[in-house]
Amino acid sequence: MQRVCFLLKVRQHRLAEYRERHAAVWPEMLEALSATGWRNYSLFLREDGLLVGYLETHDFAAAQAAMAATDVNARWQTEMAGFFEALDGAKPDEAMRPLTEVFHLA
Amino acid sequence: MQRVCFLLKVRQHRLAEYRERHAAVWPEMLEALSATGWRNYSLFLREDGLLVGYLETHDFAAAQAAMAATDVNARWQTEMAGFFEALDGAKPDEAMRPLTEVFHLA
Repeated sequence: MQRVCFLLKVRQHRLAEYRERHAAVWPEMLEALSATGWRNYSLFLREDGLLVGYLETHDFAAAQAAMAATDVNARWQTEMAGFFEALDGAKPDEAMRPLTEVFHLA
Repeated sequence: MQRVCFLLKVRQHRLAEYRERHAAVWPEMLEALSATGWRNYSLFLREDGLLVGYLETHDFAAAQAAMAATDVNARWQTEMAGFFEALDGAKPDEAMRPLTEVFHLA
């Protein structure tokens, strides 16, 4: 299993709405994530909008590609794009660049 | 299980040394973390020194307190303190403030 951590930045004035949307993610989106191998996937939010994603998967590049190929992900990422700073035209899922793991204790 | 995520900032000029230290954490420190309930504990480092911690535990406050009571933790945190920015005199483990989890998919 790969452990993957990425960071994004939610716009300050949309934090409340971001929280609400993620308390009610579409069931179809959850099913697609599970079907494409996204496991133990959490999102953590700091007060200033810094967002930390953590997940476990066999192959993150493959999980990203499989998710990107689903219709539901295209719809979801289009709706989410406006919540984030500095994506430079990319979709949020395209901006999920893994950090380097420097320590792990099982 | 609680899923806990915290952020710290490693000083830019000490990044290489931080990585080296965490590739060779003292066995006694690893044993103490396991014994006090720190599970699936990872540290991820961004190029600019932003450090993300992720772990799972039954009760983070209890796991922190139990770890803080060990001799090895006192020695480790004293050595680590100089690696971090803006601790304002606190030890690194005292500065681990959990972010809010806004989404989870098992």
